[in-house]
Parts: sequence; structure tokens; C-alpha cells
Amino acid sequence: MPEIRHNLLTREWVIIATERAKRPDQFVRKGEKKALPAFEPKCPFCPGNEAMTPPETYIVRDTNGWRVRVTPNKYGALSYEGSRQLSIHGIRRVVTGVGIHEVIIETPLHNMPMALLKDTEVETILETYLNRFKFASMDPRIEQVTIFKNHGESAGTSLEHPHSQMIAAPVITSQSRDRLINALKHFDEFGECIFCHVLDEELKEGTGIVLESEHFVAFVQYAALTPFSMLIMPRRHMACFAELNDAEAADLARVLRRTLAKLYHGLADPDFNYTIRTGPMEYTGVRYYHWYLSIIPRLTKMAGFELGSGMFINVSLPEDSAGFLRDIKVE
Amino acid sequence: MPEIRHNLLTREWVIIATERAKRPDQFVRKGEKKALPAFEPKCPFCPGNEAMTPPETYIVRDTNGWRVRVTPNKYGALSYEGSRQLSIHGIRRVVTGVGIHEVIIETPLHNMPMALLKDTEVETILETYLNRFKFASMDPRIEQVTIFKNHGESAGTSLEHPHSQMIAAPVITSQSRDRLINALKHFDEFGECIFCHVLDEELKEGTGIVLESEHFVAFVQYAALTPFSMLIMPRRHMACFAELNDAEAADLARVLRRTLAKLYHGLADPDFNYTIRTGPMEYTGVRYYHWYLSIIPRLTKMAGFELGSGMFINVSLPEDSAGFLRDIKVE
Repeated sequence: MPEIRHNLLTREWVIIATERAKRPDQFVRKGEKKALPAFEPKCPFCPGNEAMTPPETYIVRDTNGWRVRVTPNKYGALSYEGSRQLSIHGIRRVVTGVGIHEVIIETPLHNMPMALLKDTEVETILETYLNRFKFASMDPRIEQVTIFKNHGESAGTSLEHPHSQMIAAPVITSQSRDRLINALKHFDEFGECIFCHVLDEELKEGTGIVLESEHFVAFVQYAALTPFSMLIMPRRHMACFAELNDAEAADLARVLRRTLAKLYHGLADPDFNYTIRTGPMEYTGVRYYHWYLSIIPRLTKMAGFELGSGMFINVSLPEDSAGFLRDIKVE
Repeated sequence: MPEIRHNLLTREWVIIATERAKRPDQFVRKGEKKALPAFEPKCPFCPGNEAMTPPETYIVRDTNGWRVRVTPNKYGALSYEGSRQLSIHGIRRVVTGVGIHEVIIETPLHNMPMALLKDTEVETILETYLNRFKFASMDPRIEQVTIFKNHGESAGTSLEHPHSQMIAAPVITSQSRDRLINALKHFDEFGECIFCHVLDEELKEGTGIVLESEHFVAFVQYAALTPFSMLIMPRRHMACFAELNDAEAADLARVLRRTLAKLYHGLADPDFNYTIRTGPMEYTGVRYYHWYLSIIPRLTKMAGFELGSGMFINVSLPEDSAGFLRDIKVE
């Protein structure tokens, strides 16, 4: 009998095909990926080609050049110039498309996925995220800052050079608002952060845990919506990503790199997205919300049922996915 | 300057890349699709191969055999046998995976897309939907019935023989519940159905309309989330799909077939999903909700930003998409 599990954090239901689930090793990518060069002359993100992008807004240099470089997205979804203006004409409600859309180039090397970087290099990327998140959050036009990464074609990448993006928008989505409200209701009813509660319970049960460190836990949720999707959640209660301190950032770098390495080695470099789900910066100190990093390998497609119902079908067993990744040895 | 438009029906925000939008003809599919035979010996949905599927639960026969055939999905996501049972152990909330998962084989011809059927043939499919929707809704275990179609690989099809599916689940999703509540709030605040209101305004404005008939309107919403996504909405207020009468079903068949034909001819047979968004059958007569059919061509990929924020980026102008499809001549 399949199970329909309830995701407490998102209030979504997911059908888990318990009996007909695929084995974890059936998700290993088949076929060779094209080998990439360390430098690609036409790539706008490769060192020496900086003139192919707008001037950087942030850069971390080392003795040989730069380690991480941030530039406005040349084909940005939002315009940096302009003021936030709302207009309403009947059903036509529209806000001017102002905001910040930046590309975070993670490494000078064209062919170096994050899974194979050094911990200190990932730490530099996270410090860059923090810098850009705070910069965007200080802009009075901005209501929601999303940091995300698309890795591979199924995940929507158009440029293969490793990079992340930040889109800071002048509206907050109803999805984000609903999750804040849901967490607030839980806090008022039970007197606890729902994320802290879920993390505690997952740690007690143990079957979903992929790896643990002093400050973070990477786990596959009991009601994971898609195969091998994971959360990396801070043990310390923090509503906003910007509350991360230096020791926690260093620890997260290692946890993130090792988690991605488990995917890279265990499933043969699958396409994936990750995103930082956080309260806005003004939520700093708020008791009921809790930020986390969400990793979504793109191993299956959303079809009409998911689009039409808001319900998911997970063709893997979350506890099996977690066990599989837990057993993949990484440095 | 891009625009960020608000979708009144789903409360989602969508960034419309007004200046850098692609022209409609840039979405025309490139490359030939594989030509299919009218009969495929190994296809479980082709006539003569009925023994390859479970026995039918519904069938419409004609003098030469059958026109539409419904069978339980052999690899169904839910189990028909069993009782609905909820169990809660801490954060582990789970309902037994009972329900109905059926395949609606739309035509005996392996290579006949719905866009090229006769109106009367599409009408038979819609009558079949109505029969199965009512059958599932009468089952006391069922809370939400989703009828949907996946056309093409990007839309999640695994079998190429034209078919739709129905999944009747023993839970209602929070997404569906939220939309019902949103519509109820609008009704209480403004004394009107929000869907009737949006339809009226779209008709007045006119730029989003793709085609109109006596009973239905096909249109691209002002705040359409993805390129060429359309709603087909009944003019008469009806909360539930099961309220459709015979004359309306015949009219919808023609509107649906012509709308799909516009996609087929205009964009060279793009992959798409459609789904019927409806209140549950017990909502029959309810004043604040309104069912519709939602068509989602799969022309772009959801990436980390959409997954991580709940906001969409539409790289087409909804009014241009509508104008393009309006101008495609079909029978």
C-alpha cells in the first residue's frame, strides 16, 4: 500500500510509492557527461573575459587573480535602476520590475563543480552570499531575496561555468508569506519553532539523516517531495540567513560541500538546484521562523498531476535515499 | 522596465520580461517529431492489446470497436483496495495510499493527437471525464479528484498513445484548500465570484482572449506564469466540473479541440499538460468557486528561482502570446 505523507513545513502531501519505489541506485545518471576544459575562451565567466560581463559589484581576490566574482546578470530579470511603484487598474495589479539580479561566479575554473572545491573555497562563496544578501536587504525597494543555484541542463542552467544567482525582488510571494504564517500559527499553538521541532524529531528517528556536524544537519525529510531532495538546517534557531556567524559559515561550507560530493559521487553528478529559504532580514531574532538550504536533484519531471493538484508523487523511499547517501564516503 | 504582475486567482507574482521577451514565433518547436504509426503492436493502449491492461472500468463502443476506454493504471500511484486510515506519530502524519488512478485512452489511433480529433470525439472524452469524476467523487474515501493530460516527453508522458489520467486521492491539498479560501475571502469582501470577475475584466480588455464560444472563453491571463499558458473558463458560474450540462460539454469539446489545434499548428505540436481545476463535487452550487481547464505548454524549465521563491519569470508577453494564437486559423 502506498503512503501519503504530510510535510509539516510546507503543508504539502506527497504520495510515496512504498512498494513500487525505485532503488536508490536506479537514479544514478547514465551516460558520460561532456568533459569540460578548465578554461573556455568564449565563456564570459572565465578569467580574462571579465569585459564580457558588466563590472563586478563584489570580488574576492587572491594572489593569482580572483576566487569569487559577482556581476549584475547581463540579461537580468529585474532592472536595478528605477523606483518601486505599484499600480492597480481593475484586475491589473503590477509592480515595476526593479530589483537586483546578480551572478555569483564561484570559481575561476570552468570545469570545477562545487562538490570538488576545497572547504575554504566554498566558505568564500558563502561569505559572498552573506555580503550580497545583506546588500540587497538594505535596499528599501526589496522585499524578498532569493539565492539559488542551477546545476545542469535539467535544472535550467544556460551557462556551464559554475555559478549561483541572487534575485532580490520588490514583492514577497504568497508562498513565502504562507510559510511564515504557517510557522507563526504553529508557534502560537505549540510554543515552539516548527523547524526546530522537525529537526529534533528527524534526529531522534535518524533514518533520514545524511550527515551531521557541530552546527548543521543534512537530511532527507520524512515527506520529501522528490527523490533525494534534502534540507541542510542549522541546529541553532535562526530566522534569517544573515544571522549566520563565522564559525557556522565555515561549518556550513564543509557540510554543503560534502553533501554535494555525496550526490556527485553517489548519483554520478546529477543535475540539481539549491536555494536558501530564509525569512527576510527584518525577521532577525524572530522566534517562529528558521532558515535552511534546500537541495533538489532534478531526477524526475513535474507532470500534469503535480501541476494540477499541488500534490507530489515521490518514486523513491526517503529513508532509502538517505541511507544510500549516508553510505557514500566522502572526504 | 520589466513588470511584476499579480495573479488574482492564484495570488502568485510573475516577472514579465517586457523588453527582453521572446517573440511568439521563437517558441515554435524546432526539429521533426518522430512520425508514429496508427497502430503499434507493443502499445498496451492500441486496439487488440486490451489484455495488456487491467479490465476496463468504462468504455464507449461504436460499430468498429471502442472510441474511448478507461482502465486502472497498471502502475497506479494509489491502491484501489483498502480503507482510508490516518495515523500520526509525532511529525509522521500519514494517510494510507488508497484511491483511484485511471487511464483514459482517448482514441483507438496510436498517432491521433486530440488537436486533430473531431469535435464529437472530444465530446466523448469529456463525457468520459464526467463519468469518472462523478464515480470517484461518490467514493467516501476520496477528497480530491484531478483529471489531467501529459502530452510529450517534457510534459512527463511515458506512453505516446494519446491518453489522459485521473487520480482521486483521499486528501485535499493545501494548495487547493488555499485557493478555495482565497476565493471565499474575495466573495465575502466584494460579494462576487473572483473568477467571474476576472473573466469579465479579461473580456472587456480583450487583449488576452484566444477564442470565445457561447459557453466558454479561452484566454491567456494578464499574469500568466509561463509562455502560452491558457485557461478555458465557463461563462456560467459553476463551482464544480460535474455541473457541466450536455450543451456546455459539446461546446467545450469544440473550444478545447480548437485551442489545442492552435497550439499544434501555431507552435508545431508543443509538449503540454492540461488539468481540470475544480471544486470537489460537494461544492456544487457554491457561489464563490469556479472551475476551469488550465493548459500549460512546457516551453521553459522551472529552475532554482521558481523552486526557491514561488515566483515565476515569464519570458513571453501574455498579450503577444494571446494575439499570436488568436491569429492561428483553425477549423
